[in-house]
Amino acid sequence: MNIVLLSGGSGVRLWPLSNEVRSKQFIKIFRGEDGNYESMLQRIYRQVCKIDDHITMVIAASKSQVSSIHNQLGENVNISVEPCRRDTFPAIVLAAAYLIDIAGVSDRESLVICPVDPYVEEDYFKVLKSLGEQADKEEANLVLLGIEPTYPSEKYGYIIPNDKKCISRVLKFQEKPDMETAKNYIRQGALWNGGVFACKLKYIMDQAHKLIDFTNYEDLFDKYDTLCKISFDYAVVEKEKKIQVMRFSGKWKDLGTWNTLTEAMNEHCIGDSIMNESCTNVHVVNELDIPVLAMGLHDVVISASPQGILVSDKKQSSYIKPFVDKIDQQVMFAEKSWGSFRILDLGEESLTIRVTLNPGHRMNYHSHKNRNEVWVVILGVGYTIVDGMKQEIHVGDVLTMEAGCRHTVIAKTELQLIEVQLGKEISVYDKQKYSLES
Amino acid sequence: MNIVLLSGGSGVRLWPLSNEVRSKQFIKIFRGEDGNYESMLQRIYRQVCKIDDHITMVIAASKSQVSSIHNQLGENVNISVEPCRRDTFPAIVLAAAYLIDIAGVSDRESLVICPVDPYVEEDYFKVLKSLGEQADKEEANLVLLGIEPTYPSEKYGYIIPNDKKCISRVLKFQEKPDMETAKNYIRQGALWNGGVFACKLKYIMDQAHKLIDFTNYEDLFDKYDTLCKISFDYAVVEKEKKIQVMRFSGKWKDLGTWNTLTEAMNEHCIGDSIMNESCTNVHVVNELDIPVLAMGLHDVVISASPQGILVSDKKQSSYIKPFVDKIDQQVMFAEKSWGSFRILDLGEESLTIRVTLNPGHRMNYHSHKNRNEVWVVILGVGYTIVDGMKQEIHVGDVLTMEAGCRHTVIAKTELQLIEVQLGKEISVYDKQKYSLES
Repeated sequence: MNIVLLSGGSGVRLWPLSNEVRSKQFIKIFRGEDGNYESMLQRIYRQVCKIDDHITMVIAASKSQVSSIHNQLGENVNISVEPCRRDTFPAIVLAAAYLIDIAGVSDRESLVICPVDPYVEEDYFKVLKSLGEQADKEEANLVLLGIEPTYPSEKYGYIIPNDKKCISRVLKFQEKPDMETAKNYIRQGALWNGGVFACKLKYIMDQAHKLIDFTNYEDLFDKYDTLCKISFDYAVVEKEKKIQVMRFSGKWKDLGTWNTLTEAMNEHCIGDSIMNESCTNVHVVNELDIPVLAMGLHDVVISASPQGILVSDKKQSSYIKPFVDKIDQQVMFAEKSWGSFRILDLGEESLTIRVTLNPGHRMNYHSHKNRNEVWVVILGVGYTIVDGMKQEIHVGDVLTMEAGCRHTVIAKTELQLIEVQLGKEISVYDKQKYSLES
Repeated sequence: MNIVLLSGGSGVRLWPLSNEVRSKQFIKIFRGEDGNYESMLQRIYRQVCKIDDHITMVIAASKSQVSSIHNQLGENVNISVEPCRRDTFPAIVLAAAYLIDIAGVSDRESLVICPVDPYVEEDYFKVLKSLGEQADKEEANLVLLGIEPTYPSEKYGYIIPNDKKCISRVLKFQEKPDMETAKNYIRQGALWNGGVFACKLKYIMDQAHKLIDFTNYEDLFDKYDTLCKISFDYAVVEKEKKIQVMRFSGKWKDLGTWNTLTEAMNEHCIGDSIMNESCTNVHVVNELDIPVLAMGLHDVVISASPQGILVSDKKQSSYIKPFVDKIDQQVMFAEKSWGSFRILDLGEESLTIRVTLNPGHRMNYHSHKNRNEVWVVILGVGYTIVDGMKQEIHVGDVLTMEAGCRHTVIAKTELQLIEVQLGKEISVYDKQKYSLES
């Protein structure tokens, strides 16, 4: 079975836990099988891996998400990297080309495409498998997953099927109807459109070549920034006549807002927090090193990260976007392929950061034009390369690097550094990378 | 006029803005005359200074508060330092002895004693002056300030006067009555006991010598730790027969809890915060460098500092103490006589701190047994003395100090350092001080 997971946009609706580089799918908020917290991405990845023994999975993601994906899923995962954001049609075509040209999958095989961010259980993945098998039968060009509505939502798109059978021909689509229309549709057996579909790989390629002039994956990747922004629904689904829908009545939750996310949480508190007995329906997610104390609150979500602190009535939390958009703030923490960093202090002409490298990992070999840096090793062992000179480092070692000096650090064990950046023009864009061979 | 300001205990009821070293009176929460925020202490100090041109003021405070007092009021303020906590009777006697033996005030003069923490306006200080003048008349041995109750509180002590005249003989005292008794008292003209009184200095000394064997200020200071814990109310006020009360009907607010404190705030938000339009009766006090976003809340106080985050229904905030007592946490920030510090990162075997020195100020010359330290200068100029060697320092300079090495830093301009402490046994008690002459 072939599957493309669409990693989705950044989104600010789960601020402060999501920021420009950490999309909601990377927030570790669910108890995994080993008792540790896992993210939506880790959860769905684990669930997909269990579908059967022959899964070829590709994650379609933006460049800025690659580090986080490797950090959470390891180095061996297939990522179809979108060089820039171009909506779902180009992203899906790129991932399909990746499957054919890089992963060596035949275009006669079918493909299931689904987003990473719904909260679902095992039964969902069984249906994904059936969806692929249905596509193999070629009764239709496209097979969609239709989710049985649990209430007449005005937020979702609806699929109106021909009948109420498990698999049915699609009559039409309806974007976000009003409440009355939604109720009416549901009476007729309408389903939510969860953005999940299956088809032959060749079908996607045929559609792609109608709209885009390209030869193979590499060619498409190179001209990706010239493509139009267009959704797969608009470019393909809504135009297709031979299209089926498969009903799904299991658990499916869209975790787009704090309100819906907290409904899917296994516990009321994550992180250092205390709640007094008079709190009702309160959730705390605290990623800071300091405690949160909640007293006498009702229907409230509290969330704290190095990015900020949200305290919101749960229903109101859906209206967060315009407020977060107004906050002009730099990225205060991030997961990278090699570990993570967190800004500890924003000075007038300095920036102090805690850098954590995972064992065996390393930074890029790089230099900065406009800042000097100081490293103080606070945990672990490893070595540094500074202007070509290799040196073992231990706790207490101090390294100073003038602007222009090339440097990297490689972790033997988990390694932590306090990095002090010094200069009048400190910027994340001030970074020149080098290969270590040069 | 002579006045003793009682600086009071630490108190956890305003956590996280108050901690072991910052009592509530040091929290900067009121708009001062210059538009900047000032603390209760700064506010009352400013107000007392305006009473008249001949004020001799002494602040009675514990050792741990001295740095904060100098930080907020400057170096030239008189402090009667209690070597350890021994309740208000020993504290007042020590301050009175300080006035006589150190400040050279005659024991025939009168003295007004008042706590630093009520929220009051100019009229209060006019009454304090009258209180001192009334004590000068020697119609009674003690003159108390009685505050006209605004509601039948069960939290305060009551003074029951002989009549409803402005100055009246005290009939009796009543500690924290129940609601019905309080209502009954108020009908009889009873007043709240705000802990303010005036008397002759000689009167305090006479009472002191009855209970404590001492010769002068220095002798009392030296044996302070051998004294019994006893309140001035219990030791003196309740035993005195010749006692008057002066009525005060102006603004007087006890700022002991978040609920009462927010009532006295001039604005709803202090620090980096955003509140949506659906919030009602919400106060945010944010001392962190990251924004707080509050949405759809009612009657809630949000307070954030390097010590923690409180989100509480206002009424419930009075019950905070047992929860804060359970939090076993080190002091994360403090104001010192020379500036301030803030813990940025608590590592397994490291501690990273931002140290700010005010211009012209310096640390003690000191060493540590069990830790090495690294300083990175991130702002300003000054000089260091390390094992006797003087060196000018500028932004970007790095100094490393092994355990045992004596060191200090002196600020020419405002100076900021990132200090990384490294060791297995990092403790605030690991500090040996030296004089720079040795």
